[in-house]
Amino acid sequence: MKYPILRHSKYLAMCVVLLFSAFTSADLMVVKQRFETANFKTFNGETIKKVVVGWESYGKLNVKKDNVILVTHYFSANSHAAGKYAKEDQQPGYWDALIGPGKAIDTNKFYVISVDSLANLGVNDPNVITTGPASINPDTGKAYGLDFPVVTIRDFVEVQKLVLESLGITKLHAVIGASMGSMQAIDWAAAYPDWVPRMISVIGSAQSDAWATVLLERWAIPIRLDPNWRNGDYYTHTPPTEGLIAALMFITQDALTPKAFNQIGITKAVNHQALQTGPLHSIEGTYSIVSWLRERAETRAKLSDANHLLYLIRASQLFIAGHGETLAEGLKNIKAKSLFLPSANDLLLMPYLSHDANKQLVDLGKDSQLEELLGDSGHLNGILGISQKAQQIKDFIEH
Amino acid sequence: MKYPILRHSKYLAMCVVLLFSAFTSADLMVVKQRFETANFKTFNGETIKKVVVGWESYGKLNVKKDNVILVTHYFSANSHAAGKYAKEDQQPGYWDALIGPGKAIDTNKFYVISVDSLANLGVNDPNVITTGPASINPDTGKAYGLDFPVVTIRDFVEVQKLVLESLGITKLHAVIGASMGSMQAIDWAAAYPDWVPRMISVIGSAQSDAWATVLLERWAIPIRLDPNWRNGDYYTHTPPTEGLIAALMFITQDALTPKAFNQIGITKAVNHQALQTGPLHSIEGTYSIVSWLRERAETRAKLSDANHLLYLIRASQLFIAGHGETLAEGLKNIKAKSLFLPSANDLLLMPYLSHDANKQLVDLGKDSQLEELLGDSGHLNGILGISQKAQQIKDFIEH
Repeated sequence: MKYPILRHSKYLAMCVVLLFSAFTSADLMVVKQRFETANFKTFNGETIKKVVVGWESYGKLNVKKDNVILVTHYFSANSHAAGKYAKEDQQPGYWDALIGPGKAIDTNKFYVISVDSLANLGVNDPNVITTGPASINPDTGKAYGLDFPVVTIRDFVEVQKLVLESLGITKLHAVIGASMGSMQAIDWAAAYPDWVPRMISVIGSAQSDAWATVLLERWAIPIRLDPNWRNGDYYTHTPPTEGLIAALMFITQDALTPKAFNQIGITKAVNHQALQTGPLHSIEGTYSIVSWLRERAETRAKLSDANHLLYLIRASQLFIAGHGETLAEGLKNIKAKSLFLPSANDLLLMPYLSHDANKQLVDLGKDSQLEELLGDSGHLNGILGISQKAQQIKDFIEH
Repeated sequence: MKYPILRHSKYLAMCVVLLFSAFTSADLMVVKQRFETANFKTFNGETIKKVVVGWESYGKLNVKKDNVILVTHYFSANSHAAGKYAKEDQQPGYWDALIGPGKAIDTNKFYVISVDSLANLGVNDPNVITTGPASINPDTGKAYGLDFPVVTIRDFVEVQKLVLESLGITKLHAVIGASMGSMQAIDWAAAYPDWVPRMISVIGSAQSDAWATVLLERWAIPIRLDPNWRNGDYYTHTPPTEGLIAALMFITQDALTPKAFNQIGITKAVNHQALQTGPLHSIEGTYSIVSWLRERAETRAKLSDANHLLYLIRASQLFIAGHGETLAEGLKNIKAKSLFLPSANDLLLMPYLSHDANKQLVDLGKDSQLEELLGDSGHLNGILGISQKAQQIKDFIEH
């Protein structure tokens, strides 16, 4: 009792620590869960006898089950949107800055859920559970390869709906997704308007136009050229790793900007170095910027599958919100209020795509708005720079 | 004498026809010429025993030999900058809108000359004369393949200088080039400042930064992945046509814009068509926009060589104006007044590259200016849309 202030300050310090830890990602621990369904009918009319996917959730589902925010993931991601599997994980989920207790998507209020896509790119990542061309075909006991049905963004939506329904959920509070996740988000709003009162499209698109279709095709080309690809039938052979690495290099560059690349710090050395060593003297000589990109791709390739990449490309190429004959038809059904957050310097899904979608919704009399993300990271501003719109996202979700 | 007006109008009509024909490309006939030199020393210190290149000229060299405008060509072009080889040619040279009698680069005043690059992409085009990896190595009697020395933009400049000197020319009136031609133009100004009083860089760059280096590398990757490439040793085997076609598809997209692609008219059919036929039902299914791009690439591949493409990529990657340790060093030497004409929506050599070069020259106290090309064609605004700056080019050259 001699040092009440000190004693108080000790308590205060403890409270601060507790409070702080409640707000750090280290505290949001998550476990990958597993969902299984039989005889899944795909959008193109085929059947997948057994579908297994992983999913994650953050926060608690309330009694009314009306506090659900669905997060739909981007092309090379999975359902690990936030939190950590173990304290020692180097990185939390990709949108940990956005999702968590007290954050913009507040897990003290909302039950946030995300589901691994079909044909998920990271099929060889132990934290991914997916069904795709690398899965065993129950009819043959061998990997499907290209016998796996072509799947669409709509199929990803349908799998998510089955997961939600298995939890007794019949309506979302909101859906939010980045990039390929934005395709799922707007398709949700078009396909199941009564489920979706709020839709947020980050670095997104309402359909794949001719430009995007070809840009995506370019990721497929190196895989098809790799002699180890063997028309997708490589699961008992050497896989097409060189083609996969090339595709992942392309994806990384497409998602960034010249400024981001030129900040890596080896720009000025490019030509200088070339004069001293390889590139000037041999066509086989390599630039350090190319090596840097390749090393990142090599690491990612170890967890990825080439056929899965081809299936995600096709799902993205086939995308049109509502999956009907025209985009107008899909957008017409939307009841959600919409928020588009394109990145101003996005070179992959350029901002005109979001501006077009927003304008069409406004022209249809829908409640839709758009704000641009800034930063040097191009497409990746939607992941790395999402905090700049945390308040707008919070306001949009909570009102 | 009864119908003097009619008779006059007949004469007038004849004059108009004559006058008109004097201004049409059909009238500017051109013959590809041949230049040969022995023991050419490359920038990297190697020797090419025999160099043969084609060249073209338009207009007449005056007695003082001081009316020479050098046109340096872009990556997939050759010295056919203007005119036709035969009346029945479907297309004139690529800058025919700019070069000819009475045009912005007026062949009634100037002697305009252009030279096929070393390792020219169109080596299998009967109108191209070049020396590169597809040429016969005099030491072995076989095609060089990757034994051909790595060549640089500076080497292209040196070959051009030898051609000019063979004609008794010791100074240019101006040098102008688009894209890879812009690299040669500014390198001319940096390497031989006393030769170059005027330099025009169209859709250009003063050096290849990290971004451009990787973008160029992406064109090389499909060729290297094609098993028929065989490390460049394919001249007695099946050539790597699939890799070459892929590279040419990439180049075409990089040189255009979403708006250009989406105007091709098959955009809206992309997904609709997909529902009926291939892409939705088979990973092997193809989109019409992809087929359109591929068909163009197939046609171009017939005249092109995969190794030549790799050598042009490397020359472009190695580029730094002045070919010294730093860009500042190269720009410091320039005596030319400079005009930069980047394309505002260029996705290949983005306008920041020209803005940076122009700013550096202005900061060094040089006479330099910049105007942006507009239009839907991105990089290709520098070729297809060059007429919009015809007056500025004329004024720049004639003053």
